[in-house]
Amino acid sequence: MSPKYVLDPFSEKYAHRTSSMLSSEIRDLLEITARPDIISLAGGLPYTQAFDPQVILRLVSRVLAEDCAASLQYGPSDGFAPLKRSLTEIMREEGTPCLPEDLIVTSGAQQGLEFISKIFINPGDHIITEAPSYVGALNSFLSYQPQIHAIPMDEEGMVLAELRNTLQRLEERGERAKFIYTIPNFQNPAGITMSRDRRYALLETAEEFDCLVVEDNPYGLLRFEGDPVPTLRSLDESKVIYLGTLSKIFSAGMRIGWVAAPHPVLEKLLLAKQSADLCTSSFTQRIAHLYFAEEDWKGQVSQLVEIYRERRNVLLASLDEFLAELCSWTHPQGGLFVWVTLPAYIHASEMLASAIDAKVAYVPGSGFFPYRGGENCMRLNFSYPEPEVLWEGVKRLSKVIKREVALAKSLGLQGKPAGGRPHGQE
Amino acid sequence: MSPKYVLDPFSEKYAHRTSSMLSSEIRDLLEITARPDIISLAGGLPYTQAFDPQVILRLVSRVLAEDCAASLQYGPSDGFAPLKRSLTEIMREEGTPCLPEDLIVTSGAQQGLEFISKIFINPGDHIITEAPSYVGALNSFLSYQPQIHAIPMDEEGMVLAELRNTLQRLEERGERAKFIYTIPNFQNPAGITMSRDRRYALLETAEEFDCLVVEDNPYGLLRFEGDPVPTLRSLDESKVIYLGTLSKIFSAGMRIGWVAAPHPVLEKLLLAKQSADLCTSSFTQRIAHLYFAEEDWKGQVSQLVEIYRERRNVLLASLDEFLAELCSWTHPQGGLFVWVTLPAYIHASEMLASAIDAKVAYVPGSGFFPYRGGENCMRLNFSYPEPEVLWEGVKRLSKVIKREVALAKSLGLQGKPAGGRPHGQE
Repeated sequence: MSPKYVLDPFSEKYAHRTSSMLSSEIRDLLEITARPDIISLAGGLPYTQAFDPQVILRLVSRVLAEDCAASLQYGPSDGFAPLKRSLTEIMREEGTPCLPEDLIVTSGAQQGLEFISKIFINPGDHIITEAPSYVGALNSFLSYQPQIHAIPMDEEGMVLAELRNTLQRLEERGERAKFIYTIPNFQNPAGITMSRDRRYALLETAEEFDCLVVEDNPYGLLRFEGDPVPTLRSLDESKVIYLGTLSKIFSAGMRIGWVAAPHPVLEKLLLAKQSADLCTSSFTQRIAHLYFAEEDWKGQVSQLVEIYRERRNVLLASLDEFLAELCSWTHPQGGLFVWVTLPAYIHASEMLASAIDAKVAYVPGSGFFPYRGGENCMRLNFSYPEPEVLWEGVKRLSKVIKREVALAKSLGLQGKPAGGRPHGQE
Repeated sequence: MSPKYVLDPFSEKYAHRTSSMLSSEIRDLLEITARPDIISLAGGLPYTQAFDPQVILRLVSRVLAEDCAASLQYGPSDGFAPLKRSLTEIMREEGTPCLPEDLIVTSGAQQGLEFISKIFINPGDHIITEAPSYVGALNSFLSYQPQIHAIPMDEEGMVLAELRNTLQRLEERGERAKFIYTIPNFQNPAGITMSRDRRYALLETAEEFDCLVVEDNPYGLLRFEGDPVPTLRSLDESKVIYLGTLSKIFSAGMRIGWVAAPHPVLEKLLLAKQSADLCTSSFTQRIAHLYFAEEDWKGQVSQLVEIYRERRNVLLASLDEFLAELCSWTHPQGGLFVWVTLPAYIHASEMLASAIDAKVAYVPGSGFFPYRGGENCMRLNFSYPEPEVLWEGVKRLSKVIKREVALAKSLGLQGKPAGGRPHGQE
């Protein structure tokens, strides 16, 4: 086989993947994570060690005793009906009413992102994301070749003036954005939560410029402090496509998420689901249903919140201890991540090799931007490493950063932002 | 929200879905299947009742005792490494050498089809399928807007002269087919197995016209009679993308399949996997791995083969008994399906409502063609219904067909083929 016939179609279809990192770098990092001598602050893993295997075994025994043949069989593409009801209960816990017929089950929320990309994005279409944003969402979007407009955030979420500017410029050119993608709670990677006022303003702006809102809410129930803020979907069902997942409150390994959407969208999502994998696992859907219907899942979430709150506190304290003078960072009220901003002249991607030499890993910020940005930033995860490991990890990291800063100073590079290299070099 | 903003993108993206039925009709039929008074020969379900729940429970206990946290966690996108080794053992059982690093695990073979569609098909591209072909494959393909050239089959598989004609016509126009899609063993829906000679000839033709071959082999191990024929992949690794699944030999509900492909393709499949759902269930992959590594899976396959052989025999005998004078059908050497051809003037889609009135269901043939064809055909499934149910189902079906034939004769319609209505009516 001549290789050109294999490579041709990709060069066409992936031509718009201009970012230097995205998935391949994340993948390499995750491989590093597996080395036991390296402290990884790079992952995005929930702490599944907190789960009691006996609970899962009890549920599986029930499924097999009562419903074995069906659990081994194909199931409906929209999901196992009893589980769909359980998922609406989870949404109610966040003050978001939803009927089972308003959602479909997906193989993780990631699959919902892929479907939204597939059904909405034609090459050249415009979409809006936060800057930075979840790398898995950016990957799905980019694989369908949109133009992504990444809107900066302040401590209340997406900066509305920037959003309006972008939408207005599009309107002046006779174009519009297909949707606005946001992770309003404890955002991945920035750890920022969109304020209540900002949520109302965002929905008004979406209304004014006629675009849908995609609300990705994997972490909403993992709040350590502060009052809950209403979900966007609870404020405007007609305009919001809502993505949920069991990955952070039950098990990522079961691969169960869902999408709630207006019915015309839901019908197309269902077609996408049938093409994509026919149905989500009948086996894991039944286990998950029993878990949420009959076990103390809220108690388990509370336990996770306690664990993660302590770890966040340790991470923030260690940053205070070791990096207060050089860096700034976000203060997440929940979720899994802290976003650290280094001095402008430090290039986090280029520093990664040194960090790994020093036995600590992180995700460079540039991976969370569709094209460019975040070069002097990094995402740190606090959900997975034990507290004392977090402390030691930041200590190691601080040495690497301080060495890098000293090097930059000795070379007189402090004036040059990491992201601002001359165009000729790219 | 103005509905046009929801509907606009779909009308663009799904404009090429010209077939009248495909997934929505299949879906309606599957709903009918659930009504207990109806004998459904429409499904494509394996007989999961043949599985011992105790075996699954034993495996799950092991997974939870030894590896609970990892089984609840995200896993590598290319699949759980020990399972990948087990999958190569399954391929070896069909004489197809494969290394673990030559495959990725997917959420059923359907997901492999979706990925192949996504990475290869740009709108307007040409691809080749058998006529008829698997409706789930056609759905995935069509959602990326190719032009599908459906090549008729004889009892040895795709008719090579027709294939060559098509490829030659494309070549004359400066075009080519991206790939040839085939289910060589006990094809869904036709029940036909591609002969050894035809396989060699197909690969030669693919070589001559520079296109890849996508070999979908869900049923290969379910052979009731005759000698195994080599897989296409075992004859030419460099040109064949091979799709396997555990759905027919273990459990469809676990959603585990795989794709083995040349490495440049595999790398793009892995990117597609990451965008699509990050990874296949860590939990079900571990269960499946233990099943194939430690249980008597070959014994279980033999048991399924016994069950399905008997059911195929009953289905063929009942067709002989009730429909010998009116219809013809294929004689599958394995798999799940028989393809029945009715008199040319009978429209199987239009007859379906009468059949359901008579408490029997089937899939009309037209669903297995991308645009047109098979109007006087139907697919019958024999893997799921018990033997006496199969017999009764065909008996009911024969009455419906005979009534339809009598009606057509009384209206003088015998001369008009079902698929040949005037263009003005379409």
